[in-house]
Amino acid sequence: MQKSIQLKKRPVGTPTLEDFNQVDVAIPEPSEGEVLVRTVYISVDPYLRGRMNEGKSYVPPFQLNDVISSGVVGQVETSKSEHFSEGDVVIGTLGWQEYNLANEKTIRKIDHTQAPASAYLSILGMTGLTAYFGLLDIGKPQAGEMVVVSGAAGAVGSVVGQLAKIKGARVVGIVGSDEKANLIKNKFGFDEAINYKTENVGDALAKVCPNGIDVYFENVGGEIGDAVFPLLNNFARIPVCGAISAYNKSSADIGPRVQGYLIKTSSLMQGFTVGNYAPRFKEGADALAEWLKEGKLTYEETITEGFDHTIDAFLDLFKGANVGKAIVKVSDIQQ
Amino acid sequence: MQKSIQLKKRPVGTPTLEDFNQVDVAIPEPSEGEVLVRTVYISVDPYLRGRMNEGKSYVPPFQLNDVISSGVVGQVETSKSEHFSEGDVVIGTLGWQEYNLANEKTIRKIDHTQAPASAYLSILGMTGLTAYFGLLDIGKPQAGEMVVVSGAAGAVGSVVGQLAKIKGARVVGIVGSDEKANLIKNKFGFDEAINYKTENVGDALAKVCPNGIDVYFENVGGEIGDAVFPLLNNFARIPVCGAISAYNKSSADIGPRVQGYLIKTSSLMQGFTVGNYAPRFKEGADALAEWLKEGKLTYEETITEGFDHTIDAFLDLFKGANVGKAIVKVSDIQQ
Repeated sequence: MQKSIQLKKRPVGTPTLEDFNQVDVAIPEPSEGEVLVRTVYISVDPYLRGRMNEGKSYVPPFQLNDVISSGVVGQVETSKSEHFSEGDVVIGTLGWQEYNLANEKTIRKIDHTQAPASAYLSILGMTGLTAYFGLLDIGKPQAGEMVVVSGAAGAVGSVVGQLAKIKGARVVGIVGSDEKANLIKNKFGFDEAINYKTENVGDALAKVCPNGIDVYFENVGGEIGDAVFPLLNNFARIPVCGAISAYNKSSADIGPRVQGYLIKTSSLMQGFTVGNYAPRFKEGADALAEWLKEGKLTYEETITEGFDHTIDAFLDLFKGANVGKAIVKVSDIQQ
Repeated sequence: MQKSIQLKKRPVGTPTLEDFNQVDVAIPEPSEGEVLVRTVYISVDPYLRGRMNEGKSYVPPFQLNDVISSGVVGQVETSKSEHFSEGDVVIGTLGWQEYNLANEKTIRKIDHTQAPASAYLSILGMTGLTAYFGLLDIGKPQAGEMVVVSGAAGAVGSVVGQLAKIKGARVVGIVGSDEKANLIKNKFGFDEAINYKTENVGDALAKVCPNGIDVYFENVGGEIGDAVFPLLNNFARIPVCGAISAYNKSSADIGPRVQGYLIKTSSLMQGFTVGNYAPRFKEGADALAEWLKEGKLTYEETITEGFDHTIDAFLDLFKGANVGKAIVKVSDIQQ
């Protein structure tokens, strides 16, 4: 038997332990063209909260009493595919279980000798690609421009700031603790950091962005976003990646309407999801790997040990507790 | 002496007669390189409201006790420019006066034998170009897509709807009276019309857009915009041209935040002003003139007679009273 995490009921507001069931299920047997994958790392991500609601979004909702799934790095235990051998380290969207069956077409091998296997769930995976395409394709920062990033110590935000620096922009990060403020300045090279819990974000932004804001990478929404709009420069760009402040609201998310700000400044605001860029993933992954190798990019992970803490690691995302990419380590890679 | 309209004080909320002064001033004499222009038509536009506030916008604010200015068609009375002769019909941004001095570089001749002179302030002028670039450059409607236009009986909105039809889209217009609903369906060829004063806009849109909305041309903002966001399709485009519902608000304009909608649908929202497209004005004007000649475009004007009614014509814009482009006729073109 193995452990498996199912969605027990649809969360109302912030998810709690009671919304999930951890159950024992049989370890399945692969059929022709399938492999059995032992879970090594599970990626826990804020966007999964949206899939716990009913109704349409860019990915279909999780079904009740069905296993939760997300990005997983694992190792092939048994292969009935000619493309995979026992011991291969692979990545794919798989269930929150200790073992998963995977069709050979839905996983790919990764080279964990080039970068740590967990990096393929963060800077070299969807997280890094989200930062890459959102910032560079929508935000288009130019040398000397002012880029503001909310959720700046988070998995995506910390990469966004570094990419903006690579492009020669000045970068201000908004975070929720002094510890994170120090981290983004000292480790990720942000020029300035604002702690929204102790500072008035509008006043602080006006001070560190005396010439206005050219790019706002939106991870958070709510009142932090509200504070940015009055400071936009003409032709500003706002990639809208997340609105974590609103994910757990069961009431309406109300604030100043943006139309007037967008008209005054001819600014652009564009929602996106990394999946839109699937045809260009190789371009992004190659660029990120190159910058990582050159030492121009670094990353942070919050690794929670043990499958039994998977739900906790997910719930922690909404407490502002973690830094960088949140990952659960379930087992070791066997050499 | 001649009449001139000045901004007396900055309006709070909806402008009133008391915000303006109509005074008598001398008729000036042109210097070398200047012409004296007798006013024929004055364009009155909602965006001028924004220029009556203090603070930065895409055009500088009007100064107190200074003449208001906007698009004007006039006829040259006296010329000290080798490029203009007495009797030439010209267009430019000029003061709300019976006569204006104009530098030869700030006006251009129009051919009022090809189209009525007033059309150069509406469908062949900034209004038509605003619709052209906003819809085609940002909205990018495709054949078979669903386009929704607010302020649909207005100067810009009525052109937007016709351009969307030329591109093969289905078009729904939102208006404020049954008379306007009939007008946009019968004269401008919209497929459907919604009267926001008698119908629930969200319900009505859901009914006439059962497959969702691909392009929303925003002229109005406020609750009408709010009703559109939940119906956006993936990769929807929202050119943000105006927010007339908010122009006269002295309190904050509050409503549902848009970030969640934009993320869910990967939609784009972009503010613009026609001036952004100055290098492409000729392309737009040529296309509009061609469609007008072919009978694919038509237009409506609300012409107010007499300089003394200029302020009234401007104030009427905020009462939802006018249809099509609002123009004041001040004098006749002399043959």
